[in-house]
Amino acid sequence: MTKALDDTTIAAALIKRPEWRRDGDAITRTVKLKGFARPLLLANAIGHLAEEADHHPDLTVSYGSLTIRLSTHDAGGLSERDFALAGRIDDLAD
Amino acid sequence: MTKALDDTTIAAALIKRPEWRRDGDAITRTVKLKGFARPLLLANAIGHLAEEADHHPDLTVSYGSLTIRLSTHDAGGLSERDFALAGRIDDLAD
Repeated sequence: MTKALDDTTIAAALIKRPEWRRDGDAITRTVKLKGFARPLLLANAIGHLAEEADHHPDLTVSYGSLTIRLSTHDAGGLSERDFALAGRIDDLAD
Repeated sequence: MTKALDDTTIAAALIKRPEWRRDGDAITRTVKLKGFARPLLLANAIGHLAEEADHHPDLTVSYGSLTIRLSTHDAGGLSERDFALAGRIDDLAD
């Protein structure tokens, strides 16, 4: 089982991930992209990373944006796995 | 501009769409599907319908489910376009 991170560790990890915001037990990032096909395409690419990592975000595709929400349900909070995947998503999205 | 439907018309339309629930200015449906690739695949298929209809839902892909949220922002509520697309989504998902 993955261990949940404490608040201090989470705050420090978020400094390195300025695009992400904490929302309770999760971190979220919204990427703005024109139209609907582009956000959907990014969701597919992130889906590939998620399957590789065996760690799955919630991905909300909307017209003009994709919102990514990461949490570690097993740990009952945020874990290193969330920040590892956030890093890979940032590499892809930026 | 598309016209918003009144509450009576929405209630009648929902009787024909038992998988959908009203949530304020939107209707939502959650489809349970195993894993992450299946919900993502359904999101892609719905994305195709959405582009055809030029009417775009919010699609939330999660591990084990896809949630679809339909609303007509131009109309400030629900319109016939939402129920038309809900019907096409039901045809696809069921």
